[in-house]
Amino acid sequence: MDMLYIVPVCALIGLIFAGLSYARMKKESPGDDLMQKIAAAIHLGAMTYLKRQYTAILVFVIVLAVVLSLIINPLTAVCYVVGAGLSALAGFIGMFSATKANVRTANAAKQGMASAFKVSFSAGMVMGLTVVGLGMLGLSLMFFLMTGITGVTDEATINILSGFSLGASSIALFARVGGGIFTKAADVGADLVGKVEAGIPEDDPRNPAVIADNVGDNVGDIAGMGADLYESYVGAVIATMLIGATAGMASQFPGVPSMSLIALPMLIAGLGIIASVIGSIFVRTNKNEAHAIHKAFNSGTFASLLLTVVAVYGLVEMLAPGNIGIFFACIAGLVGGFLIGIVTEYYTSYDHKPTQSIVKSAETGAATDIIAGLAVGMESTFIPVIIVAAAILIANYFGGIYGVALAGVGMLATLGITLSVDAYGPIADNAGGIAEMSHQGPGVRAITDTLDSVGNTTAAIGKGFAIGGAALTALGLFAAYTQAVKLEMVNMLEPVVFVGILIGAMLPFLFSSFAMKAVGKAAGYIVEEVRRQFKEIPGLMEGKTDPDYASCITISTNAALREMILPGLMAIAAPIIIGIALGSHALAGLLVGSISSGFLVAVMMANAGGAWDNTKKYIEQGHSGGKGSFAHKAAVTGDTVGDPFKDTAGPALNILLKLMAIVAVVFAPIFL
Amino acid sequence: MDMLYIVPVCALIGLIFAGLSYARMKKESPGDDLMQKIAAAIHLGAMTYLKRQYTAILVFVIVLAVVLSLIINPLTAVCYVVGAGLSALAGFIGMFSATKANVRTANAAKQGMASAFKVSFSAGMVMGLTVVGLGMLGLSLMFFLMTGITGVTDEATINILSGFSLGASSIALFARVGGGIFTKAADVGADLVGKVEAGIPEDDPRNPAVIADNVGDNVGDIAGMGADLYESYVGAVIATMLIGATAGMASQFPGVPSMSLIALPMLIAGLGIIASVIGSIFVRTNKNEAHAIHKAFNSGTFASLLLTVVAVYGLVEMLAPGNIGIFFACIAGLVGGFLIGIVTEYYTSYDHKPTQSIVKSAETGAATDIIAGLAVGMESTFIPVIIVAAAILIANYFGGIYGVALAGVGMLATLGITLSVDAYGPIADNAGGIAEMSHQGPGVRAITDTLDSVGNTTAAIGKGFAIGGAALTALGLFAAYTQAVKLEMVNMLEPVVFVGILIGAMLPFLFSSFAMKAVGKAAGYIVEEVRRQFKEIPGLMEGKTDPDYASCITISTNAALREMILPGLMAIAAPIIIGIALGSHALAGLLVGSISSGFLVAVMMANAGGAWDNTKKYIEQGHSGGKGSFAHKAAVTGDTVGDPFKDTAGPALNILLKLMAIVAVVFAPIFL
Repeated sequence: MDMLYIVPVCALIGLIFAGLSYARMKKESPGDDLMQKIAAAIHLGAMTYLKRQYTAILVFVIVLAVVLSLIINPLTAVCYVVGAGLSALAGFIGMFSATKANVRTANAAKQGMASAFKVSFSAGMVMGLTVVGLGMLGLSLMFFLMTGITGVTDEATINILSGFSLGASSIALFARVGGGIFTKAADVGADLVGKVEAGIPEDDPRNPAVIADNVGDNVGDIAGMGADLYESYVGAVIATMLIGATAGMASQFPGVPSMSLIALPMLIAGLGIIASVIGSIFVRTNKNEAHAIHKAFNSGTFASLLLTVVAVYGLVEMLAPGNIGIFFACIAGLVGGFLIGIVTEYYTSYDHKPTQSIVKSAETGAATDIIAGLAVGMESTFIPVIIVAAAILIANYFGGIYGVALAGVGMLATLGITLSVDAYGPIADNAGGIAEMSHQGPGVRAITDTLDSVGNTTAAIGKGFAIGGAALTALGLFAAYTQAVKLEMVNMLEPVVFVGILIGAMLPFLFSSFAMKAVGKAAGYIVEEVRRQFKEIPGLMEGKTDPDYASCITISTNAALREMILPGLMAIAAPIIIGIALGSHALAGLLVGSISSGFLVAVMMANAGGAWDNTKKYIEQGHSGGKGSFAHKAAVTGDTVGDPFKDTAGPALNILLKLMAIVAVVFAPIFL
Repeated sequence: MDMLYIVPVCALIGLIFAGLSYARMKKESPGDDLMQKIAAAIHLGAMTYLKRQYTAILVFVIVLAVVLSLIINPLTAVCYVVGAGLSALAGFIGMFSATKANVRTANAAKQGMASAFKVSFSAGMVMGLTVVGLGMLGLSLMFFLMTGITGVTDEATINILSGFSLGASSIALFARVGGGIFTKAADVGADLVGKVEAGIPEDDPRNPAVIADNVGDNVGDIAGMGADLYESYVGAVIATMLIGATAGMASQFPGVPSMSLIALPMLIAGLGIIASVIGSIFVRTNKNEAHAIHKAFNSGTFASLLLTVVAVYGLVEMLAPGNIGIFFACIAGLVGGFLIGIVTEYYTSYDHKPTQSIVKSAETGAATDIIAGLAVGMESTFIPVIIVAAAILIANYFGGIYGVALAGVGMLATLGITLSVDAYGPIADNAGGIAEMSHQGPGVRAITDTLDSVGNTTAAIGKGFAIGGAALTALGLFAAYTQAVKLEMVNMLEPVVFVGILIGAMLPFLFSSFAMKAVGKAAGYIVEEVRRQFKEIPGLMEGKTDPDYASCITISTNAALREMILPGLMAIAAPIIIGIALGSHALAGLLVGSISSGFLVAVMMANAGGAWDNTKKYIEQGHSGGKGSFAHKAAVTGDTVGDPFKDTAGPALNILLKLMAIVAVVFAPIFL
């Protein structure tokens, strides 16, 4: 289909805009010597981390590629390597750019909020557009290559492409789970010794873990988030292609050739990139207020959403005339993703009732603060479940199982701009850290603080969006799995299916437990190292000597990589073990159980964590006694509990759901 | 079937032994005037609570009985009223006896541990044997009555009996959810003002909420636990009878008449009562050590289990010769229940690694203590899930769907002794409170403390057992529901089924959130009332005047009843709404989703709560700095977070699972 060539073109346009954004950011001044020195340390730390991680990934990818070549298909292995390689490249570009932009944002803050905002959002766009650009460029080229090799565009050929999605999942596993452990280990370790024991402020350059902490923001929120959403993005598209390629699927849509069903998700994603690029032009403001930034983000997001709706409508009219239901199915996901973002904001912002109820509970102590936060987190699962359920039912009504998978594509179609907005946050956060460490004036700090506070809101929304995207992607992959193993029916009344559901529902609990314990262990190593440096390096506390930042980064990196082995293996092994031991029906149960329970636990953790964080921030603004009060101490405890919730265990669940589902898809032949 | 007449005979023997146990306990001295005065206040408070609660229940039961008469069947309504009435009666007898035994235990402690133990366990047996005795007496008599009225023992007639189970669920809803809110509201309220604000010790008679707190132990752990297990007990038996009565089920067991499949669960339960009575004779010790009490409990439990195994074997040989698989199916559940108890003990006792890891985390503060506890709770779901999964698969292999339901009966067959052991704990706890308030010597306190610590272990095991029993019962009821609506197949690949699972999995989260918020609200009322009394009653703090204990009890009772309306309605309405709106397949999904996610959340909450509690107790024994240390303060915070986990939200989930399933069974005709 000739029309498909617009997909790589769209992807290239996205990449070109990413390059332009990078150039725009890079030409800004990196500030004075001290700023440059700090930024160089963060940048070097981030690169050190990536190098170490990519070495581990390389081994992992080679092993799995060999396994795939032998058991499944050498072509699947090729797609796998390309999918993994491009995700790794996107992560590298995003990190590289973010750690150049942080100091430039801090320096631009001297000229006012609008300048600083422009710099940080430019770097966010580098990440956002690189992820979608490389994702669609790679996927479309692999599609052309594989259909060229096999000579046909049938189910078997598309199945080969699922390797691409598995590659994305492999990187996401390391970037999100390992990154989540790294970031919180460094954060908690730095705080425990620095703030609590030594009594020095946050982001104090004397703290040996402070650079690791700042590197961690990039590792978790740039590379981790990016790899997670890259995985969802290509996973949702490939799952829909797989279902579209299934024998007999086209017959459900009168007059629509199978090829159109296969092409549609790629085309939607491609035009979504253009919509994101155009939308990003609307993200501009000359005003120096947080409100104006929020408005700019909303304008850009709305513009992209609207353009995507128009594009989807046009594509459906062209490729599947008379089947307008497909359009509605896709839009159900798009609207669902948007609504989940709003709900997340409601539950985690201190402007609304839920977080206010935690603030009140903090006044009676840490225990009540934590109980209230857990209650808010649990309650906050209700509306997202209803939204996802409604999206599924609507998409299914209009487009059957293909429609449900396409809803995932719809939700992620505007990822280009969503991820750009999301990646802006950690850059602003880093800029604040650099401003603090380089002793900038209160005016600059006020600006970076405001940018950071906006970033907290966008981060919360981004997390909700990432969870929703992961759930729909995993559901699409689950549907693709059932097609791949030729399941027409999985009877839930069979005990083996129920057992699969039960075990699947348990895995997110076990996985979260591993992730939280890993943070505790890794933070312990950092604590020891920081104590050692304080004791052994003469003149450190007086500020005469620099600490050994690199050692803390190395320790965090190694601990993160070591601690993610067990949960990572579990995610890969569980579906294979259950599939072989209890059969393909039980495996279907496992996936359904893990998607439903994982979605719930992830939402609970993200929202409880976000609400605790904002409870603390609200009290720090002078409410309930302000900083240092009894309520504040309670809120700090709640926030610390929330850290591994929202930044490690919760986001790691996104990976678990998708990884188990794609493993089931790729290894489907052995469960047949 | 004439043989069935032994069921009411067994039940009567159980009740006679309950009466003898009561007489044995009652003839002990109730101690000096002060002890009697305090005990009378607790007793009166408990009776006040029951009176108020039973008034509310009466209205509820009448309304639902009318609904059942009109929509379903007047005979179902009769069974419903009898099932509810007998559960209420068992709760009354257990509470009455426990609040007579607490002071006698405290007084008997003057003569040594063995005497005190005898008294408290006698009262525990009153509760344990009354629950099983009234349960089986009522159920068997209703069986005779209903088969007498309809003239046949077919599926439709057994379906009428499901009303009995719904009656049990109605009482359990009030006793467990309302009771859970009451007990923790009183506990937290008493501590917040008494210990924290006024600085007076726990169980100080000047604290107006102290009696409510002691009443709460009975309300939650006697009446609540009893009603919960009564519900599981009759629910598991009725679910198995329903499945046994299904057309065509008997054909799966060559040579076995349908009547035998119907009779078997009742007969197993009946002989289980005799096994429990005999087992209880082995629960005796003359030694004054905690170790000896544990050994006595183990002897009694083992004896009962062994006798039950023999009895089940004999029954299967007699009623279903050549179908020994039925025996194995039943034993799978019995062994599973036993193993879950052991795992629970492992995860919550400070003798083992999990709780020790929390102790270590407490040394770095409340946040790490809480993170570690949550991680332990989440990890602790793994083995129970594997146990339940194995029990289901084994039972299904040997006995099909009937076998799975019968596994639930096997797990609960020895409930007589299990519940006796469990009910001993709160009595010992109360005895300790009375000893404290009546200023007994350190020797007496040491004995009640030891009894209490044994009670903590049995309580943890009992909670694990109750959750396991609830899960298997709910699963049995789910199977009965599918039979009732003639579902042969529920295709999990239909989006509507997946949506049902997702919504079902969400409900335990929402329900827990309601329960935890309810505790916070109700505790707030108590705090205000205690503050008011401290301020307004002259001479109270000097010990010259008594506080107004009754007002705190009234406030807790009213708050508990008010706060349980929303979650209670949710549990009843959710299956009906989903069943009507999305159909019987979606409702099946809802039940499966709620059973799997509810089981996990309940296990996590119970074990995290128990582990936090024992972390605190371990530190109080002088470890990690002992009482008042930094680690101790952290552990106290953790324990407070755990309180609503393990005593309110967690146990309430048992009710949610079973209640939704029995609602689906009883209202099956409207989903057809």
